[in-house]
Amino acid sequence: MKEKNPELAILDVGCGSGSISTTLAQLVPRGHVVAIDLDPTVLLRAQEVADELNVRNVVFNQGDALKLPFADNSFDISHCHQMLLYLQAPWDALREMLRVTKPGGLVAAREGDMDTECVWPETPELLMFHNLAANLIAAGGGDVRGGRQLLSWALKSGADRSRIVTSYSTWSYSTAEEKRFWAQGMADLIRQGRFRDAALTARLTTEDELERMAIAWQAWKTQEDATLAMVSSEVIIQKSL
Amino acid sequence: MKEKNPELAILDVGCGSGSISTTLAQLVPRGHVVAIDLDPTVLLRAQEVADELNVRNVVFNQGDALKLPFADNSFDISHCHQMLLYLQAPWDALREMLRVTKPGGLVAAREGDMDTECVWPETPELLMFHNLAANLIAAGGGDVRGGRQLLSWALKSGADRSRIVTSYSTWSYSTAEEKRFWAQGMADLIRQGRFRDAALTARLTTEDELERMAIAWQAWKTQEDATLAMVSSEVIIQKSL
Repeated sequence: MKEKNPELAILDVGCGSGSISTTLAQLVPRGHVVAIDLDPTVLLRAQEVADELNVRNVVFNQGDALKLPFADNSFDISHCHQMLLYLQAPWDALREMLRVTKPGGLVAAREGDMDTECVWPETPELLMFHNLAANLIAAGGGDVRGGRQLLSWALKSGADRSRIVTSYSTWSYSTAEEKRFWAQGMADLIRQGRFRDAALTARLTTEDELERMAIAWQAWKTQEDATLAMVSSEVIIQKSL
Repeated sequence: MKEKNPELAILDVGCGSGSISTTLAQLVPRGHVVAIDLDPTVLLRAQEVADELNVRNVVFNQGDALKLPFADNSFDISHCHQMLLYLQAPWDALREMLRVTKPGGLVAAREGDMDTECVWPETPELLMFHNLAANLIAAGGGDVRGGRQLLSWALKSGADRSRIVTSYSTWSYSTAEEKRFWAQGMADLIRQGRFRDAALTARLTTEDELERMAIAWQAWKTQEDATLAMVSSEVIIQKSL
């Protein structure tokens, strides 16, 4: 992409901490990325990351995936990752992304499918964590089995099947280094920040349970036979000319 | 492999209909493949396929994965695919494969994880099929969640963690052509052959239910939003010198 299309205008919807947005910006040095998230608090951190990497062609703005604050035909590519599964009507977000994408441009979406998560060894605490994460998404009206439904969502957005390319992939953690990285991320998620607050506020768990889950991830990473994998699926929709 | 090591001696354990064995043989034109399966009836068909493709450097023999009929240090590579999950003690088969592999050679195993199977749209008949296939494996003492346990099985076989490389992958069916292929395979499986016989003998289903499942797969393939995906995992173990 860097060599072929350095001038692309890219929209990243539901950018969260902005790591993908910033990477995309680095790939289009003469183009730019507009990244939005419904939650303004994550955008500050996202801007910090871009600043640390001296990436100047990305902007972070508050915005709603269901009501994108952009004119029709504004972007070459509209992208989202692990965002649609939080929505009650994910096809409406895809329809919005199609609207703001230029004719001939691409809408690219990737969603995990949490029901395919394989964690080994399975302990009661790790299963409890899996269920908590799933219940939290369901409580917000989302669907943890987004991966397998992504094509159906793309069709519901109005896209023609002949303009949709699908694929599946896995992410996984098996080496000592990968497991340290993952376990630290999980412990942080459980001990601080939005996930913890949301889970406690929704009364889906207790502080004691959360601490047991964090400890379980720290123990998991040290086990030789520990692995983790999950299916993600992707669609790329080309907007009609 | 074809260019670098055309003379390899490869063992394929649990070869079934032999499609992988024959492909491996084509990759080692000056080497050879020995393919074994516990069930002698599948070997006739496997030999036919090799004959049709004029592949002469593969032999098919009846043999037990838990008691491989070969001397120590006989093969450069010992391979199995979707075989270990049928065994009560899959690590014993891996230990046998390590025994017959030459020092410095490789044991390569790939196992699906049926609990990660994503079929969409989900219909009662397709879920019934999924559960039937899983129950049949469980009834035989196997474990449908082989994928996530493959690393732990490799460790239980006695392999050192530092000699094991792990990976995950997906197979999936989403295009019209892929879905026709898959649905035909499922209908064949359900309407004839070993799967049908075993399921009926074990009284896990009825002829009427089986027919409904076959029809459901045929309907599935015609739906625009239909997809299927599953996680597989792989280990490659290098035997010590």
